[in-house]
Amino acid sequence: MGPDPAVAAVRLAVRRVLAGLPSRGVTLVACSGGADSLALAGALAFEAPRAGLQAGGITIDHGLQEGSGARADAVVRTLADLGLDPAGSIAVTVDGEGGTENAARNARYAALDRAAGRFGAAAVLLGHTRDDQAETVLLGLARGSGARSLAGMNTALSRPTARGDVLYLRPLLDLDRATMRRACLAMGLEPWDDPHNDDPAYTRVRVRHRALPVLEETIGPGVAEALARTAKMLRDDADALDDLAARAYDDLLDTDELVDADDAPAIAIRVDGLQELHRALRTRVLRMAALKAGSPPGTLAAVHVDAMDRLVTAWHGQRHVDLPGGLRAFRRYGRLLFGPV
Amino acid sequence: MGPDPAVAAVRLAVRRVLAGLPSRGVTLVACSGGADSLALAGALAFEAPRAGLQAGGITIDHGLQEGSGARADAVVRTLADLGLDPAGSIAVTVDGEGGTENAARNARYAALDRAAGRFGAAAVLLGHTRDDQAETVLLGLARGSGARSLAGMNTALSRPTARGDVLYLRPLLDLDRATMRRACLAMGLEPWDDPHNDDPAYTRVRVRHRALPVLEETIGPGVAEALARTAKMLRDDADALDDLAARAYDDLLDTDELVDADDAPAIAIRVDGLQELHRALRTRVLRMAALKAGSPPGTLAAVHVDAMDRLVTAWHGQRHVDLPGGLRAFRRYGRLLFGPV
Repeated sequence: MGPDPAVAAVRLAVRRVLAGLPSRGVTLVACSGGADSLALAGALAFEAPRAGLQAGGITIDHGLQEGSGARADAVVRTLADLGLDPAGSIAVTVDGEGGTENAARNARYAALDRAAGRFGAAAVLLGHTRDDQAETVLLGLARGSGARSLAGMNTALSRPTARGDVLYLRPLLDLDRATMRRACLAMGLEPWDDPHNDDPAYTRVRVRHRALPVLEETIGPGVAEALARTAKMLRDDADALDDLAARAYDDLLDTDELVDADDAPAIAIRVDGLQELHRALRTRVLRMAALKAGSPPGTLAAVHVDAMDRLVTAWHGQRHVDLPGGLRAFRRYGRLLFGPV
Repeated sequence: MGPDPAVAAVRLAVRRVLAGLPSRGVTLVACSGGADSLALAGALAFEAPRAGLQAGGITIDHGLQEGSGARADAVVRTLADLGLDPAGSIAVTVDGEGGTENAARNARYAALDRAAGRFGAAAVLLGHTRDDQAETVLLGLARGSGARSLAGMNTALSRPTARGDVLYLRPLLDLDRATMRRACLAMGLEPWDDPHNDDPAYTRVRVRHRALPVLEETIGPGVAEALARTAKMLRDDADALDDLAARAYDDLLDTDELVDADDAPAIAIRVDGLQELHRALRTRVLRMAALKAGSPPGTLAAVHVDAMDRLVTAWHGQRHVDLPGGLRAFRRYGRLLFGPV
C-alpha cells in the first residue's frame, strides 16, 4: 500500500523541486509549525535523503506572542525528530514598521537569508499553498496596479544578500491547504494553529475567512484555483511586458549629451519611438524613465503615468507633468525629458 | 448656479464621447429605464444638440416579465419627453440558450445592431458604469483564464453587422452607480428598478449584492474602483501581447509546402523561434496555431496549451498532444505540426 494521497502529493511536489537543485549544500525548510510548512518539512525529510541531499529546518521566533520561545523549541524538536539536520530556531525583533505583518515578514526573510548564508544552503523551501496565493491575488487586486500586483508569489525567487544570492522555492503553490492538513494527519505530525491566523485585525485573515468563502458561494467553487491560475498567467504576461519595455527603453533612450537649462542631468526618451509602442509598453517605459530619473516607486502612481502618456499621445503644448520626488517630465525637441523641478 | 455635480459628471462623460463622433447620423442611447441608462439618456438629450448632433433612444422589451410591454412604452415616453428622436422600443424573443442572462444579452445586441442599421446611427451609447465593470472583472476572475478574461468591457467596441460596423460606446465606465442615481434625481427622472437586478439566481446579482460589499469590508473601500482600473491596465496588456503574438505567429509560420503523411493540410511552426519567445507570447502563439488548425475556442484550455508548451520547452520525445476538435500537435524536424488525428 502506498502513502496517503495527500502525503504522496506533497512528496511529489518536493521531489520535483529537489531534482533541480545542486547536490552541494543543505536544503532548508522554513517551518512555523503550522500545517502547511510542517507537511513540507515532513516531505523534505523523506525526499532529501532519497535524492542524495542534506536537509535542515529553521523556525523563526517572532517574539510577538506569550510563550513564542517555547513554541519555537517544540518546532525545533519536531524538525529534529523528522531527521532534519541542522534543526534550529532564530529569534527576531519585529519593529512594527509598515504594519506588523510587513515588519514580521521582513524580519523573517532577513533571518532566513542569514541562516541560508551560515549553512551554505542551496535553497530555502517555503510552505505557501494555492490558498495563500489566492489571498495574495485578492490583496493585489485591491491595489489596482495592474498585472504585477495580481501576479502573486513566485515559485522560485532569488534574494540577493551580502553573502550571495539565496534561492527561495515554493513547492506547494499548486496544492491546497486542506491537502496539507490531511498530509500532517497521515504523517502523524501535529500542526500548531497560530492564533494570529484567526485575528481579523489582519487583512489577510479577513480575506481568508470571509472574502474567499463568499466568492466561492457567489461565483462558484474553484475560485482559489482560478485565482492561482490567473496569477501564473499574469506573472508570465508581466515578465514579458517588463522585459520588452526594458528593451524599448534602452532603444529609445537618447544618449546624446543632454543637459537641461540649469546643467542638471536629465533623461531623454525619443517621442516618435514612444508613439509607435503599444500603450502597455509605452506606459511601462514612461514609468521606468520616471523611476530612473529618481521618482520614488511607492508614490509614482497611475495618474502620473497617464499624464506623461498624454504628453506623448495627446500633445497640445502642455507645459510639464509634475512627478513625485521633485521631478518633472516635459516635451521638447521631439524628446520627453525628465529632470528636477 | 451650475448643474448638480452628478449631472455635470454624466454630461461631461457624454460630451467627451460625442466630440469624437462624425456630425452625420444619429447617436442612439440604449435605455432600460434603470438609473444608469436613464441618466445617460438625459445627458445625451442635453449634450447632443449643443454638439450639433441628432440623438435618439431605444429600449428593448425582452418579454421576460409580466407587463414588460407597458414598461417599454413608459420608457419610450420618457425618452421622447427628453427630446430624443427617434424614441422607440423593440420587442425581442429570448430563447434561453446558454442561460437567460446570455440569451437576453445576445437578443438585445442583435436588436440594437438592427436599430443602428435602420437609423444609420453613428454610435450606440451603453450605460455600463464602473460598478458593472468591477462585477465583470470578478466574474472573469472566476474563469481563471488570464488577462483577457479580467480585461472587462471596452469603452469602445465595433460590432460587425450585415449593414456595416456598429460602434458601441460606454461613456460611464469611470463613474459609479451612485452618481447615476443622484443624476436621475437631479434631472427629475424616475428610474425603474428591474426586479431581475435583485434576483440572486443570477451570478452577477450575487456578485453585486454580496461579493463586492464583502470585498469592500474585508480589503477596504475602493475595491470597485481598483477592479475597474485593473481591467483597463490588463486590457492594454492583453492588446499588446495578442498583437505581438500574432506577429510572432506570422514570423514563425513555416509556409513551405507541408503536408502530413495522409496528405492532410497541417500548420507548422518553427520550434527554434518558439523557444526564443517569452512564455506569455509562446503560449499565445501555440493557442493561436491550435485555433487556426481548427480546435474550438470554447474547449481549448490552459491544460492543452501547457502540454503543447512542453513539446517546445521540455521535449523528451513525447509522441503528441491531443487537442479538442479531433486534432493533435506533434514535433517533427524542428517544427511543431498541427493536424487532424
